[in-house]
Amino acid sequence: MESEQLWYLLPAVGVALLAFLFAGWLFAWVKKQPQENEKIREVSGLIRKGANVFLNREYKVLAIFAGVAAVLIFLFLPHPVWSGDIWSNLMMAGAYLVGTVFSAFAGKIGIAVATQANSRTAEAAQKGIRPSFLCGFRGGAVMGMAVVGASLLGVALVFWATGKVTDSNAALLGFSFGASSLALFAKAGGGIFTKTADVAADLTGKVELGIPEDDPRNPAVIADNVGDNVGDVAGMGADLFDSNVASMAAALVMGAVLGGNSVATVFVYATIGLLASIIGILTARMGKKGGPTRALNASTYVTTAIFAGLTALATWVFKFHWAIWGASAVGLVVGTIVGIVTDYFTDDSKKPVRKTAEASEIGPAFTLLSGISYALVSTLPAMIGIGVSALAAYFLCAPLGEGFALFGISMAAVGMLSIVGMIISNDAYGPIVDNARGLAEMGNLGEEVLEITDKLDSAGNTVKAVTKGFAIGAAGLTVIALLGAFLSEVNAAGARLSAMGTLPNFVPISGFDIMNPTVFFGMLVGAAIPAVFSALLMLGVNRNAMRMVAEIRRQFREIVGLKEGKAQPEYDKCIDIATTGALKELIPAGLLAIISTLAVGFIGGVHAIGGFLTGNIVSGLLLALFMSNSGGLWDNAKKYVESGHNGGKGSAAHKAAVIGDTVGDPFKDTAGPSINTQITVVSLVASLMSTIFLTVSIFK
Amino acid sequence: MESEQLWYLLPAVGVALLAFLFAGWLFAWVKKQPQENEKIREVSGLIRKGANVFLNREYKVLAIFAGVAAVLIFLFLPHPVWSGDIWSNLMMAGAYLVGTVFSAFAGKIGIAVATQANSRTAEAAQKGIRPSFLCGFRGGAVMGMAVVGASLLGVALVFWATGKVTDSNAALLGFSFGASSLALFAKAGGGIFTKTADVAADLTGKVELGIPEDDPRNPAVIADNVGDNVGDVAGMGADLFDSNVASMAAALVMGAVLGGNSVATVFVYATIGLLASIIGILTARMGKKGGPTRALNASTYVTTAIFAGLTALATWVFKFHWAIWGASAVGLVVGTIVGIVTDYFTDDSKKPVRKTAEASEIGPAFTLLSGISYALVSTLPAMIGIGVSALAAYFLCAPLGEGFALFGISMAAVGMLSIVGMIISNDAYGPIVDNARGLAEMGNLGEEVLEITDKLDSAGNTVKAVTKGFAIGAAGLTVIALLGAFLSEVNAAGARLSAMGTLPNFVPISGFDIMNPTVFFGMLVGAAIPAVFSALLMLGVNRNAMRMVAEIRRQFREIVGLKEGKAQPEYDKCIDIATTGALKELIPAGLLAIISTLAVGFIGGVHAIGGFLTGNIVSGLLLALFMSNSGGLWDNAKKYVESGHNGGKGSAAHKAAVIGDTVGDPFKDTAGPSINTQITVVSLVASLMSTIFLTVSIFK
Repeated sequence: MESEQLWYLLPAVGVALLAFLFAGWLFAWVKKQPQENEKIREVSGLIRKGANVFLNREYKVLAIFAGVAAVLIFLFLPHPVWSGDIWSNLMMAGAYLVGTVFSAFAGKIGIAVATQANSRTAEAAQKGIRPSFLCGFRGGAVMGMAVVGASLLGVALVFWATGKVTDSNAALLGFSFGASSLALFAKAGGGIFTKTADVAADLTGKVELGIPEDDPRNPAVIADNVGDNVGDVAGMGADLFDSNVASMAAALVMGAVLGGNSVATVFVYATIGLLASIIGILTARMGKKGGPTRALNASTYVTTAIFAGLTALATWVFKFHWAIWGASAVGLVVGTIVGIVTDYFTDDSKKPVRKTAEASEIGPAFTLLSGISYALVSTLPAMIGIGVSALAAYFLCAPLGEGFALFGISMAAVGMLSIVGMIISNDAYGPIVDNARGLAEMGNLGEEVLEITDKLDSAGNTVKAVTKGFAIGAAGLTVIALLGAFLSEVNAAGARLSAMGTLPNFVPISGFDIMNPTVFFGMLVGAAIPAVFSALLMLGVNRNAMRMVAEIRRQFREIVGLKEGKAQPEYDKCIDIATTGALKELIPAGLLAIISTLAVGFIGGVHAIGGFLTGNIVSGLLLALFMSNSGGLWDNAKKYVESGHNGGKGSAAHKAAVIGDTVGDPFKDTAGPSINTQITVVSLVASLMSTIFLTVSIFK
Repeated sequence: MESEQLWYLLPAVGVALLAFLFAGWLFAWVKKQPQENEKIREVSGLIRKGANVFLNREYKVLAIFAGVAAVLIFLFLPHPVWSGDIWSNLMMAGAYLVGTVFSAFAGKIGIAVATQANSRTAEAAQKGIRPSFLCGFRGGAVMGMAVVGASLLGVALVFWATGKVTDSNAALLGFSFGASSLALFAKAGGGIFTKTADVAADLTGKVELGIPEDDPRNPAVIADNVGDNVGDVAGMGADLFDSNVASMAAALVMGAVLGGNSVATVFVYATIGLLASIIGILTARMGKKGGPTRALNASTYVTTAIFAGLTALATWVFKFHWAIWGASAVGLVVGTIVGIVTDYFTDDSKKPVRKTAEASEIGPAFTLLSGISYALVSTLPAMIGIGVSALAAYFLCAPLGEGFALFGISMAAVGMLSIVGMIISNDAYGPIVDNARGLAEMGNLGEEVLEITDKLDSAGNTVKAVTKGFAIGAAGLTVIALLGAFLSEVNAAGARLSAMGTLPNFVPISGFDIMNPTVFFGMLVGAAIPAVFSALLMLGVNRNAMRMVAEIRRQFREIVGLKEGKAQPEYDKCIDIATTGALKELIPAGLLAIISTLAVGFIGGVHAIGGFLTGNIVSGLLLALFMSNSGGLWDNAKKYVESGHNGGKGSAAHKAAVIGDTVGDPFKDTAGPSINTQITVVSLVASLMSTIFLTVSIFK
């Protein structure tokens, strides 16, 4: 490592450590908030215990998976260990393991703070909406800071440790694969857990027995709240850790090949993004005027503006390319636009939600058809947005020289994810206030407090739409960049194999031609994978929820006095069903993604894989957008009806809207968000396996 | 036209005319069957009148569209009329108009016979299942023969009339575009009509009032039966006419460039396919043993075997390439496999339907999630099947020389569609027996007759699954071939423009590189189009059904004695709502497909269009498979519950299953089958506009 390269690593590591300190300070602040209500303390303890039990059991299963994967990686990647150079294989396996550990840590920290912040947010609501908001938000921010700090620190360390720039690529991809393979299972497992409990609790509680949400008599109520934490907090943290690492890894792999100050640009921009997020979080505070939505959005915009300004300054000071800055600015702008469009389709003051609520008056079939249709329409603007930003980044950066075009696209993704600290803070805020609402109900804090937590909860949903736009847009750009990374890995591997005499006639590949039927074959198969992947998750939820519904019905039948509130339900049994089921159901979907990539690669070689990744990206983005948006739309349509429109609570329209919401739940919280991770995993497997696919495949 | 080329045109025209004669004979046979029941005659007259009113109004609207399109084609295609050569523009516009007229004729003939055959099939059921089956099947066969005869005749005439082989390509695509643009609107309009009426009739009749299906008191009952005819018969006829013409046109465009006996192969195989269908239809008869399903499938397999045998003979006699024969045989085999897989996901003796019926016991949300999940899984085998057959055809034919590989793919499509005559006969049989069931109920023919028509109806549904496999598989291969046709059109146009000095530096394009961001941009936008297209159709159904539900409720409220069966409902009003609504709602979806293609072409040029078509194909196939299979699955799950399982009729599971079926109806009968046509239209627009996209576009 030449000393001149160190200058950008030190501030990156420094700011990453600052983020940890800041997270520690926020955590301490949260823990200092009063927690006095005995009932709330007890229930919150149950939730914390349930979440930890699930997480520990999940991590035990995943540790076996990671161990096996690490051994395989050591044996085969980046090239078979018996072909020499044992160190790069060790480095790769090590980076992979570090990736999994960091990812697990991100989940753990999130659970730790969220399960402390929920009860304190509930109690703070007794003093008013502003302190309650602050407690929920700062709880979420701990997670945000921990995740972004860990990803910047991890990438910097792996980049530094793998030494010489040209060799560091593969180990970075290994680190990223560690993060994403764990995220795949964590997101899937958490997603199945949370929706199992949510659907089963709603169905038996709200629909069959007519008792309110979060009623302590419902045996699934603790499992439901645990689910918010393990699905939305831990799963989401692992997911965004993975996206963030993947976007940096893709940019660094390409930047290292390009040389010049490309690598420096990536690190400097990422460091500034983290700094901007810290400032943004510090400014987040509800003013005397304006609701929580405004406070959340304002801090997002503050972060965005600081990022744009400081990166411009850095570009000027360090003489980076202005085109690269332009690309990252395009990423920010498009992220905002995609967010605003998403908002239109899920906002209850706009036509899609209103029309879906209206359609519910006729019957549930119309709720569903209407929601499905609007969500299908909603894919167009986002797809155009991702396409246009890739196009703009490409044309901005192509004049800089060969290879810069794809690097520009990866920097647009880095730009979009610069505010990932804010995204995670806002996203983790959601389940914390959602939990707080449940605790307030179970602790009998009264109507006024419930009203405050409801307001905070609804702000979380609204803001999520905007941040989700960034997340999906960034995932789209990242995987396009990963496709570029795959291509450069293939050519690097080909050159090496050619030099070794294994593939003497290797000609570098310039791209993947659609008219090549091997590519087309890969594309058709790749397009079906996200569909099957999400189906397996949803079938898992279905099966698991059916088990839990049976258990809840059994408890109401067998436990005397439960319905009257005179006996305690057996919360544990429900948590256990959700846990066991989730762990059982998450494996097939995760393996499908990895095994299908291997199968297509061994059959059709690198061209088939090029098509496979493309089909996977295109249909994956489409399905992810469709599922996230339809789920959000139905959720808000139900809330809109509940707030007294189209017949209001208890009407036929309400029943129809609840059915829509139940269908939408696994869409938006299990399958939809897991698809992003699935695409990343598949892309990374392809890049890592490029040498092997070049040498062993039936059709080359 | 050289005389040696005539030898294969004459038999083609001869067999096409034979098909018309055969259709005429079948029609006469159907009309000779007794029609005695006064009530049935009356209702059947109402249905016929309603269908004709809709068709005439629809064709009036479409005539305006076709007229405008013909003028635009004359002005701009194949190249601006002022740039010389007025004859090719005239020829193109003429071929286009002939295409629309033939397509309209196919719809008309189908309606004419189906609305005669329905009542006779109902009455024949009084004599037993065998004569009833024969009447329904022969009614459907009239349509099958007319459509296939018309497509072979039209393609042969246009090919002959446009004279010199090298110039004939464009006019053939114009003919195909005429067929597909009309099919797009006919399928969309018919699909909206039929589901408007079906959904509204079920919702008010079965669900609200608890009166049986096809009860004459329901004001929407006639509209519902009209819908079966205009949607399933006329729309489906236009759809398959379009697929058949497109597959032949793509093969001929490429075959003409390849020279040798390629064109002859296309015509000889298509002629043999028609002959085989005639024989297959003649053998279709229910034996004393075995039900109607067996009779229908047997005749399909007879046709397939005759086709395979006769084409092998022809290949030997005329010294065609055996590789091409292999490709068409691969098409047949894969079509069968896709059909069998489809069958697995929609058959009520298999797991997907059973599990969905079981999930209905818990609630409608589970019916939906289960059906959606299985249908998502069902896309994988079909996508693999299409991909593998393209790959196999390619590798079989690639050794024959450059260009033969894509020609092989188009011949696999021709092979799949060789049995299109049988497909249409089976498909048109469905709505005829469905109508017959309704007429038997309204004519009070008794329980025994209803049982027979139910059996015939259910056989229609089962057989549809297999033929649908062929239709979707063929559409997939055809559009891959059309992508090839687009590429050769672009290169031909480029060469011409280069010779004229307009594009002096034109370099022939060898393919479309995924790593080119213009291609990727096109791909992302193209992938969203089928989603938006199907959403617009479903929203159209939603809006229209809501209007009709309101009207039905009004009639039951205002017409005294209607519910007791003492007064007549105002059937006309419902037919009018369905008609007006369908005509209003079909336009935006159709225009979206055409305008988005033009927009992407003008922005990104031919590379963006290459990506656009690819994205469109990939996501279109995925959505079409998903929608067709989920619709079929829910339909059969409902029937399974109705036959006494999981609680049977009237149970909570039944209500949930009905909701699933209602969601599935527009999936499988409106949006799903229209997507095929949408893909074809977009591909043809791209090919026809290739010269213009090469010269005017923002990014080249």
